[in-house]
Amino acid sequence: MRRLGVGVLGVGEMGRRHAENLRRLVPQAQLVAVADVAAGRARQVASELEIENSYGSLETMLECKGLDAVVIATPDKFHAAAVKTAAAAGKDILCEKPLALSLAEAHEMLEAVSKTGVRFQVGFMRRYDPAYVVAMKRIEAGEIGVPVIFKSIGRDKDGPPLSAYRSNVNGMLFYTNTIHDFDLARWLMQDEVSEVHAYTTSSIRPEVAEFGDVVASVVNLKFNQGAIGNIESYAQANYGYDVRTEIIGSDGSILVGSLHRTLTLLIAKGSIQPVADYFLTTFADAYLAEIQDFVETILRDRPPRVSGEDGLKALAIAVAAENSHLQGKPASVSREVPAAAL
Amino acid sequence: MRRLGVGVLGVGEMGRRHAENLRRLVPQAQLVAVADVAAGRARQVASELEIENSYGSLETMLECKGLDAVVIATPDKFHAAAVKTAAAAGKDILCEKPLALSLAEAHEMLEAVSKTGVRFQVGFMRRYDPAYVVAMKRIEAGEIGVPVIFKSIGRDKDGPPLSAYRSNVNGMLFYTNTIHDFDLARWLMQDEVSEVHAYTTSSIRPEVAEFGDVVASVVNLKFNQGAIGNIESYAQANYGYDVRTEIIGSDGSILVGSLHRTLTLLIAKGSIQPVADYFLTTFADAYLAEIQDFVETILRDRPPRVSGEDGLKALAIAVAAENSHLQGKPASVSREVPAAAL
Amino acid sequence: MRRLGVGVLGVGEMGRRHAENLRRLVPQAQLVAVADVAAGRARQVASELEIENSYGSLETMLECKGLDAVVIATPDKFHAAAVKTAAAAGKDILCEKPLALSLAEAHEMLEAVSKTGVRFQVGFMRRYDPAYVVAMKRIEAGEIGVPVIFKSIGRDKDGPPLSAYRSNVNGMLFYTNTIHDFDLARWLMQDEVSEVHAYTTSSIRPEVAEFGDVVASVVNLKFNQGAIGNIESYAQANYGYDVRTEIIGSDGSILVGSLHRTLTLLIAKGSIQPVADYFLTTFADAYLAEIQDFVETILRDRPPRVSGEDGLKALAIAVAAENSHLQGKPASVSREVPAAAL
Amino acid sequence: MRRLGVGVLGVGEMGRRHAENLRRLVPQAQLVAVADVAAGRARQVASELEIENSYGSLETMLECKGLDAVVIATPDKFHAAAVKTAAAAGKDILCEKPLALSLAEAHEMLEAVSKTGVRFQVGFMRRYDPAYVVAMKRIEAGEIGVPVIFKSIGRDKDGPPLSAYRSNVNGMLFYTNTIHDFDLARWLMQDEVSEVHAYTTSSIRPEVAEFGDVVASVVNLKFNQGAIGNIESYAQANYGYDVRTEIIGSDGSILVGSLHRTLTLLIAKGSIQPVADYFLTTFADAYLAEIQDFVETILRDRPPRVSGEDGLKALAIAVAAENSHLQGKPASVSREVPAAAL
Repeated sequence: MRRLGVGVLGVGEMGRRHAENLRRLVPQAQLVAVADVAAGRARQVASELEIENSYGSLETMLECKGLDAVVIATPDKFHAAAVKTAAAAGKDILCEKPLALSLAEAHEMLEAVSKTGVRFQVGFMRRYDPAYVVAMKRIEAGEIGVPVIFKSIGRDKDGPPLSAYRSNVNGMLFYTNTIHDFDLARWLMQDEVSEVHAYTTSSIRPEVAEFGDVVASVVNLKFNQGAIGNIESYAQANYGYDVRTEIIGSDGSILVGSLHRTLTLLIAKGSIQPVADYFLTTFADAYLAEIQDFVETILRDRPPRVSGEDGLKALAIAVAAENSHLQGKPASVSREVPAAAL
Repeated sequence: MRRLGVGVLGVGEMGRRHAENLRRLVPQAQLVAVADVAAGRARQVASELEIENSYGSLETMLECKGLDAVVIATPDKFHAAAVKTAAAAGKDILCEKPLALSLAEAHEMLEAVSKTGVRFQVGFMRRYDPAYVVAMKRIEAGEIGVPVIFKSIGRDKDGPPLSAYRSNVNGMLFYTNTIHDFDLARWLMQDEVSEVHAYTTSSIRPEVAEFGDVVASVVNLKFNQGAIGNIESYAQANYGYDVRTEIIGSDGSILVGSLHRTLTLLIAKGSIQPVADYFLTTFADAYLAEIQDFVETILRDRPPRVSGEDGLKALAIAVAAENSHLQGKPASVSREVPAAAL
Repeated sequence: MRRLGVGVLGVGEMGRRHAENLRRLVPQAQLVAVADVAAGRARQVASELEIENSYGSLETMLECKGLDAVVIATPDKFHAAAVKTAAAAGKDILCEKPLALSLAEAHEMLEAVSKTGVRFQVGFMRRYDPAYVVAMKRIEAGEIGVPVIFKSIGRDKDGPPLSAYRSNVNGMLFYTNTIHDFDLARWLMQDEVSEVHAYTTSSIRPEVAEFGDVVASVVNLKFNQGAIGNIESYAQANYGYDVRTEIIGSDGSILVGSLHRTLTLLIAKGSIQPVADYFLTTFADAYLAEIQDFVETILRDRPPRVSGEDGLKALAIAVAAENSHLQGKPASVSREVPAAAL
Repeated sequence: MRRLGVGVLGVGEMGRRHAENLRRLVPQAQLVAVADVAAGRARQVASELEIENSYGSLETMLECKGLDAVVIATPDKFHAAAVKTAAAAGKDILCEKPLALSLAEAHEMLEAVSKTGVRFQVGFMRRYDPAYVVAMKRIEAGEIGVPVIFKSIGRDKDGPPLSAYRSNVNGMLFYTNTIHDFDLARWLMQDEVSEVHAYTTSSIRPEVAEFGDVVASVVNLKFNQGAIGNIESYAQANYGYDVRTEIIGSDGSILVGSLHRTLTLLIAKGSIQPVADYFLTTFADAYLAEIQDFVETILRDRPPRVSGEDGLKALAIAVAAENSHLQGKPASVSREVPAAAL
């Protein structure tokens, strides 16, 4: 059986997990190389995963023998350039979310992908999470009737250090966190979001406002076919990593939630259950299923389950949310590059 | 010990519960009369509760001997007139929510109350629910740090019959349902809402739109001191009566929810827990605590825990939500009567 | 409508609750008197509940005018004498659990009741708890198929003070705590327990062993028709008052549990839910429903839902459990008074 | 880095999972061969896992080059012979639970292991389950005080087919199911069980009694240092696979449970959560952690976390439970081979 040769670009936390999964848990793939601008980090990951090749740039990795596909897990800002380069080299691509930080970049990426004909998948891994998968099946089976309201919550435990805001290589809250829910909204409601309205706050950490970011947000959603929704995002919930989604329909509702109760401690303080504190723990299975599917998709020559178009559409909602936040009024969701940006 | 003589105006479902509570469960009160424009209904309730006096109007009930206070549980539209009449007669008043259906009416009511010096309480009974009370205490104790986000959900099981929309005696969704959450928002966040943005839907029951109402809504909230929030209301969730509130702070979060798990059935379909289907069941204790407190407040000559001002302020948020819904943009919360209404 | 005149004997915690319920929440009853060997306590309760008559003994209370029925809530040891006296006076009786502390006494009580023809009910109030009532209905509806295993847990928060053990007026753990589960076992399984086996421990509080009592126990059950079961009792769980019952059948299982989740605090320690700490809180509704039913049963001349026979049968299981504990082997359940006791 | 060469004997469901884990998820191991008396099945598993060597017997597999250790996952009855053979060949061993079906066999196995000096681990994989691991840590940290009561429930979804009972190659309920809880009891209570008492039932499937087995059981436990406990096992719960353990201490209690709530469906029937239906799903992580630890233990030359002695001691409790079931009285736990069996 042919194994797919994959290289991972960017071996921070996220890329490293992809590399580990490819190396250890995806028998149909062969991790042939890792690359990182921090070449030392790439070397170390290569050594730990016992693979031979590590590089300091995508360009050099692309020359590695046996490389069929690349996983792009750089900071958000560099997605666009990396995708264009990898596509030009004819490599299939799994690109982490968000697709890009602007619609102009996103369009260039999709064009590059389309021109070269490489396969392209965007890293909305929640679509691979077992609970979300079951939720989707039950919605499709009509168990909640017609979807009426979409609700989602995404809370990270600890806010990024100020240096992360300062470096400016990743998008603001809407692009790094809420983008997952924007994708879930489209996917689970099987509809498009036409307009959004956002309130944001950074009152408990005013410094982040200087970098154009916010600590928390609530985004109202209006869907094309009449449904409505709301997404809450919070960068520093402190108590844990907490993701919950609910789709409320005409007949019932379905909830997906990260608050488990596998373990309960009963003490005088009350009934205590541990809360997950980290996305890589909560979604470990989803990340693995995602990369397995990516590999199989290519080996079996199937269309990707999460396309570049999906990446673009979620991005367009994030852009609209940011516009609403900046302008203090609802903003239409549009995939067109705004004139001002041309 | 002196007992407070109370009459109940309007003995539909809600007024009847107040009458029952007063008759059976509040020893410091004496239910002296009930009144209803449907005089036959008043008679029947009086008979069932074994009290002597029933009337076909507030005016006639006000002449009943021993009447110190009245509970107003008429349809919303008639609150204003009833409060003004009762105040003029010098009776202390517990008025069901919403205070009124317009700011102009509300101001007239508060003026009447203020001029006559009667005690006045508004029926936001969730403030008396044991779980909300504990939540408030924990927030005040600083257990979640500084409140950052307010979230609330209010879902009724079955939507009102079309005749209820047609009769036009009650307010739309924001005034009958969301008003509870508007009050909770103010109370639990100890802050005022300055602006709101609403999306609504009636796509699964378009007929209600003809009556100026909606089936579901999501309302984004902006608070004066930087916090944000969102409230979802849904008139016909079908699966049950479901109320949940969460206050998310800088250190943690507190959830109040109506989904219990006192009883669990484990069958091949899964783990099944019954869902409450009715507000009078879920909040039975709250309604009783409310009326007990109302009675004690008067007997001990204390200021009411939920004042007319509280009624006005929640109403102002509902008015703003309706404006946002009508105008398709955020609306400021203002207690001023809009010029157009003068 | 005729109201039932009721007197309460013993106004400690439990009797006081019955008196309050009768006075305030049961309109068909009239609390005519309270009695207690501590006559001062009886006087104070009478004063607080605003009734006229208080007595220092059952005998004197029995002469009170208007007394139709008595609630016996003395320490366990005095149930037998009180029931015989009240029955001789022709009063209907609600006797707290356990019926008695020995089978010999129990037989004398039932004989006295039977001879005088008074109505007699035993205070197994869990049969009136809404969750247990629903559980029973679902079992009867066949939702779990044929019952196979009965499981129950009863944990008190704080163990009794040593003085309570020393006074020797109440039964040991099996008689005061497990007796509830013995009754539930019979009721919910619709079968009789034929044999039991008990292990007990008092290792964390060895002093109680001196008084013939234990701190915790596990009792294996064997039912007549082939089912089996186990009951755990724990006098000092420390974290709260925790009652859970599960009936496992051939098709599914049904759980009744006191661990709610109305309120959840999410903090860095985890997800925390308060735990009930007191039986009068958890079962407030059950106690009220019980006394309401007792009153109605008499007024409508119906047979009691929990008969003296039920009291005797549960007691026989407790006696067998104690025998197993003392003899270190399984013990048959028998309602016969053992020869040695004659 | 040296990789441990492992062969798996018996590739039914359980052995197959071990083989998959070794092949795909344990980089420090190399799956060098599988063997099964059904040689065709061994060939197919080898082919699916893309390894070269498959055998029809342990003896032939033992000659395979590069084989350092074997996993024994045959039917219970064949554990003893397989362990003795593998030990004689100097291979390290992971043997599935139960160690054996009699104490005599168990002693022979441990002797063989001890004589040859191979490393030996028994497959009590729950000790590797993340929730049990955390529970153990919290108990050790003193969070529940002194352990007083041990409770455990193990329910399988579907009972074995009658053919499985007929084949007589596996132990009865105590040996296949309850054995896990016997081990947990020892491990989590850090104490030994001295005596047990069992009631059993097969009334809903009387055919199994002919094969000396039962459908359900409750086993009372008495520990050396004063604690007590109870374990319920049920072979055919029908609604799902359900494992729950609770350790109740002097200060609090800790619960480990398999009933999750990752996904909730709210419909008119109630709040519905899926129930796990299969042990390989519930304990997927535990099985992986177990085999990883086994491999590391050997590579790093550490003593195994679950020793042959542990296997023997859990078996001794199962033997005592069976004795109690057969003799209708409590049975002492003894590791001695009963005289009658010599």
